[in-house]
Amino acid sequence: MARNLYPQALDNLLEALGNLPGIGSRSAQRIAIDLLKKPAHAGLLSKALNDASTQITACSQCGFFANDDLCALCSNLQRDHSTLCVVESASDIIPLESAEAFHGLYHCLGGLLSPLDGIGPEDLRIDKLLERIKNHPHCEVILALPYHIEGEATAHYLCEILSNMPCSVTRIAQGLPAGGALNHADGLTLLRAFEGRRPF
Amino acid sequence: MARNLYPQALDNLLEALGNLPGIGSRSAQRIAIDLLKKPAHAGLLSKALNDASTQITACSQCGFFANDDLCALCSNLQRDHSTLCVVESASDIIPLESAEAFHGLYHCLGGLLSPLDGIGPEDLRIDKLLERIKNHPHCEVILALPYHIEGEATAHYLCEILSNMPCSVTRIAQGLPAGGALNHADGLTLLRAFEGRRPF
Repeated sequence: MARNLYPQALDNLLEALGNLPGIGSRSAQRIAIDLLKKPAHAGLLSKALNDASTQITACSQCGFFANDDLCALCSNLQRDHSTLCVVESASDIIPLESAEAFHGLYHCLGGLLSPLDGIGPEDLRIDKLLERIKNHPHCEVILALPYHIEGEATAHYLCEILSNMPCSVTRIAQGLPAGGALNHADGLTLLRAFEGRRPF
Repeated sequence: MARNLYPQALDNLLEALGNLPGIGSRSAQRIAIDLLKKPAHAGLLSKALNDASTQITACSQCGFFANDDLCALCSNLQRDHSTLCVVESASDIIPLESAEAFHGLYHCLGGLLSPLDGIGPEDLRIDKLLERIKNHPHCEVILALPYHIEGEATAHYLCEILSNMPCSVTRIAQGLPAGGALNHADGLTLLRAFEGRRPF
């Protein structure tokens, strides 16, 4: 189809929408046509995008999304400030908060060690983590990093670095997921589930 | 999860994204986080939305998306101006153009007859259709309306109205879709396919 069939503004909108994650050309078309029918909604979305780009910053302490210097989590005195959960990125905090799995503070590394991609310890927010532990000695550091190669490497590196620090280090459990059947689990998961067995 | 966990600007963005067709809360979250990582893309999308809302109009003749008074289709003299394809809405033109199924001009009704929803003939662009036929007598009007109740009702209404006009009226065929197997087709489709059989 000749693309110059459309007004340039529609082509631009289709391209910008099609670049969003999980949005193919058909979804982009559907969304664009819906937005053309509802100009008020298009205006709201445009404003929300602008505001988000200009107003949202990273919390200076943990790295989560924030309006001010500290995010809503770090500035909440009700939370347990003696446990620090280390995650890869700010978006990992969202499922943990949704599940209400943890009530302490977080620390986003901003990535994982990956020598092949040229990401070393100096590229992660590790200095800031050590500083926080110094300021809160005797805290528990919970590593909530993914169980793949980069995640494992980062966890082992942190464990070594933190062994000289005044904190205890734990890592979230690996095992069968909720509703998980044994015949659907892979071998490594089963091995870890047996290694991690606890008194019942 | 307490929603006030997020900066207000992020909540607003999640809500605006979640209102798009086919975007649930998880997709909205994924898109929002992606856009926060790529502020340049967020800016482009915001601008594209604004431009689309302000610059795109409906073609005064056929109702398709246009920059000026006439759309790219109506102002294209290479197209067959003696056939008019009647569709429900501007978005129906897109798959027809993608398939290169038709090389004439279109006419968007802007809806279908639906007495239950209070949509009568005066709410559709039927006057404009009659005016176009008067200006191009002996044209062929092809009804490309959906084969459901409102589509059938609108097609029959138009057929009656157009019977006094200087034009011929046809309707696109109903039958098995490409790649369609008989054992997957519903009874009505098979009935119409038999009724519409042609010399082979």
